[in-house]
Amino acid sequence: MNSSLINNDTIVALATPQGIGAIGVIRLSGNNAIAICNTVFSTKSLNKKDLNIYKSHTIHFGVIHDEDVILDEVLVSLFKGPHSYTSENTVEISCHGSPFIQQQIIQLFIKQGARMANQGEFTLRAFLNGKLDLSQAEAVADLISSNSATSHQIAIQQMRGGFSSKIKLLRQNLIDFASLIELELDFSEEDVEFADRTDLKNLVNSIQRIVHRLIESFEVGNVIKNGIPVAIVGKPNAGKSTLLNVLLNEDRAIVSDIPGTTRDVIEDEINIDGVLFRVIDTAGIRETTDIIESIGVAKTFEQIKLSSIAIYLFDVHEISLNELKEIVSEITPHLNSSQLVLVANKIDKEDMKYTYREFEEFKNMIFISAKEHIGIDDLKKYLVKLFDNKTINITETIVTNARHVEALRHTNMALLKILDGLNNNITGDFLAMDIRQALHYLGTITGEISSDDLLTNIFSRFCIGK
Amino acid sequence: MNSSLINNDTIVALATPQGIGAIGVIRLSGNNAIAICNTVFSTKSLNKKDLNIYKSHTIHFGVIHDEDVILDEVLVSLFKGPHSYTSENTVEISCHGSPFIQQQIIQLFIKQGARMANQGEFTLRAFLNGKLDLSQAEAVADLISSNSATSHQIAIQQMRGGFSSKIKLLRQNLIDFASLIELELDFSEEDVEFADRTDLKNLVNSIQRIVHRLIESFEVGNVIKNGIPVAIVGKPNAGKSTLLNVLLNEDRAIVSDIPGTTRDVIEDEINIDGVLFRVIDTAGIRETTDIIESIGVAKTFEQIKLSSIAIYLFDVHEISLNELKEIVSEITPHLNSSQLVLVANKIDKEDMKYTYREFEEFKNMIFISAKEHIGIDDLKKYLVKLFDNKTINITETIVTNARHVEALRHTNMALLKILDGLNNNITGDFLAMDIRQALHYLGTITGEISSDDLLTNIFSRFCIGK
Repeated sequence: MNSSLINNDTIVALATPQGIGAIGVIRLSGNNAIAICNTVFSTKSLNKKDLNIYKSHTIHFGVIHDEDVILDEVLVSLFKGPHSYTSENTVEISCHGSPFIQQQIIQLFIKQGARMANQGEFTLRAFLNGKLDLSQAEAVADLISSNSATSHQIAIQQMRGGFSSKIKLLRQNLIDFASLIELELDFSEEDVEFADRTDLKNLVNSIQRIVHRLIESFEVGNVIKNGIPVAIVGKPNAGKSTLLNVLLNEDRAIVSDIPGTTRDVIEDEINIDGVLFRVIDTAGIRETTDIIESIGVAKTFEQIKLSSIAIYLFDVHEISLNELKEIVSEITPHLNSSQLVLVANKIDKEDMKYTYREFEEFKNMIFISAKEHIGIDDLKKYLVKLFDNKTINITETIVTNARHVEALRHTNMALLKILDGLNNNITGDFLAMDIRQALHYLGTITGEISSDDLLTNIFSRFCIGK
Repeated sequence: MNSSLINNDTIVALATPQGIGAIGVIRLSGNNAIAICNTVFSTKSLNKKDLNIYKSHTIHFGVIHDEDVILDEVLVSLFKGPHSYTSENTVEISCHGSPFIQQQIIQLFIKQGARMANQGEFTLRAFLNGKLDLSQAEAVADLISSNSATSHQIAIQQMRGGFSSKIKLLRQNLIDFASLIELELDFSEEDVEFADRTDLKNLVNSIQRIVHRLIESFEVGNVIKNGIPVAIVGKPNAGKSTLLNVLLNEDRAIVSDIPGTTRDVIEDEINIDGVLFRVIDTAGIRETTDIIESIGVAKTFEQIKLSSIAIYLFDVHEISLNELKEIVSEITPHLNSSQLVLVANKIDKEDMKYTYREFEEFKNMIFISAKEHIGIDDLKKYLVKLFDNKTINITETIVTNARHVEALRHTNMALLKILDGLNNNITGDFLAMDIRQALHYLGTITGEISSDDLLTNIFSRFCIGK
């Protein structure tokens, strides 16, 4: 790896989230990490303790002190390179969860010669030192921000090298192909064909199909990562806001069942059985009736267009079967690839105009009472089922990263050019050029090909301390 | 220790703050902590790893998995009782800083037989198992919430047992005294005096003086912990809001110099050279001129009464020397024990009505331009100096805990009764009763005397995971 980003100075940062908690962890990594820690670390009874003489992966109780002033009683975890996250000497200080103390300790380490880490710099070093490849490093960031079982599983697989090994295999196949072509070029004057053109075409074809499938998986991957867009539409007073709250609150209740694990729920995300749904324009739903009414039907169609699942919610007492038919036929042209779910609300109220049987002609209809929490589970199960029907099997490799899909699209174009070339019997040197293109783009995914700009761009999206 | 709060079931909680970060730490403590972790922990290549066979204070890399589903790659820190925070077997899982993952892992541990920890339960166990006494445990909470150098140093000293040892010494002196009295009671029929009454009086006197001094220290301790109350008063347009912002922002700038350590600054707290000041009624200062004008002078006096330091801010171009004299004499009766600082603002503007010399008759006057940041450092240094003059030396023991000062007040009353009794030659059995009272109250501080209610009350104020 030849990068100006490589350096061995010792960096420090808070690795745990901001704020007050039981403990916080400060991470120190680099050539002098142990030496710097040694200058300010002593046993509880204030005797100096040389961490150098201890084994890697051991924990030491003591105090961090600035001269005579004791900053905190801490646990120091010792990791000796290359057996650390960054592959450098690393020390992690587990101190009390006080922002004030953490700041004091970090300042002390800086005084002793460390410098504040840049965003993602620990993981950047892990990458530069060959601990993980670029797509694995990117998966670390995805993993941290994952908030559903599916996005989490994809990120874990990617971090553990599942995606990388697939890309590397494709790349190896291409390299094998390239070497045959290059061999032909070497002997070009003798006009020999080392590789059977049909075999070659089959090989490139199969690679291209895999790449194409990976590109296609991005649509699902993106939805998994960011949530399946759901539109809840319907007339004023149909109960949209109530339904939204019921869906959001049930989700929150599950999360806050376990004290200490409540997360900042983003207003319009609903996690159902590990699948993330994202409600479009919750603000609109929450606005007063008047405003919604004034925005009108155009807004509704816009929401439906943006969604993968469109819920049409209606008051079961206020609609006629004919009207409902009309609405369905009105909405349908706007659906694109999204699916329509009809949700009949307010079934708790007596005297329904129609029997359930009379509604049977409509497919995809769920009966609920948002107010009385009736049928909500049916609706949720139905939403998850729609997702299952749509998605590729998650055990397959799914691309969730826009950079990767971009590289795959370039790869795909190069592969199509190769196939085109093979069909038109173009010369080996042109083929070789296209192969190098494909290899280049595949290589950018795992970071075998990378630039400092690219790396800076990727790692600057990480949080500090990672 | 005889408490219904003692139990050895295994508890689990997130120990680091909520939210997204590089890492999060989940703490598991109790009889089965290691066994429970073993059921879900494997090496990276998914081989089972028995943590029992490893030494305490070692770190193990691997994965946490729920059957076949890998939840995260983690570091597991192993602490074998009694060499842990709680004195029980403890395992700390350092996982990725994703709330989703943390929740999954905690749920998994609960499925495997752990239960969610109550607030402060880890520290409660440390207390019940004799790892620290009650005042030390309380200092842990103070330490975590400390946000100035002084409150931090007091909390550290208390956590490290400085305060406890002082209380224990007082208690031991009283016990020695008590044993002499009890001896006299045993031999009461022989009418012997084992203890010279003058010596006894001197002993109790000296104990009472120390207790009294500790009680007095609470005034300072409380101020250190919660901030020294500062009132910024003055006419509309004197520049109060600008001054407040300058003071607050300079503080914030220092904090945010180090990325990753920015803390949630409470609006009206200003940390100057490690001393915490708390500006009274910042909302009032921030209100529009009209509102302030309408609230008028009564409000000003109220603020001054609540403050330890009252800043009277005025536009140096808009005031006459006579007016200023009048204002000082008006404010002075409302000062109680607080100190008045006159701050002349807007010195950046030309053509001051008076020379600096003409202002010399006023003491405690600082010249500034809040707008142009002139003289702000002088003002800050002056505020810190006022604090230094007021305070007891911080190296002395300072009581910051309301519960402790309450117990000390009760102790003090019992001691005064003993002295009274000694003066009136009351019988030994009455003396013994008062001594037991004093011993009881001193004992509640360190927890030698405690009730489940008290403990529940104290530890319920802790965060979960501590």
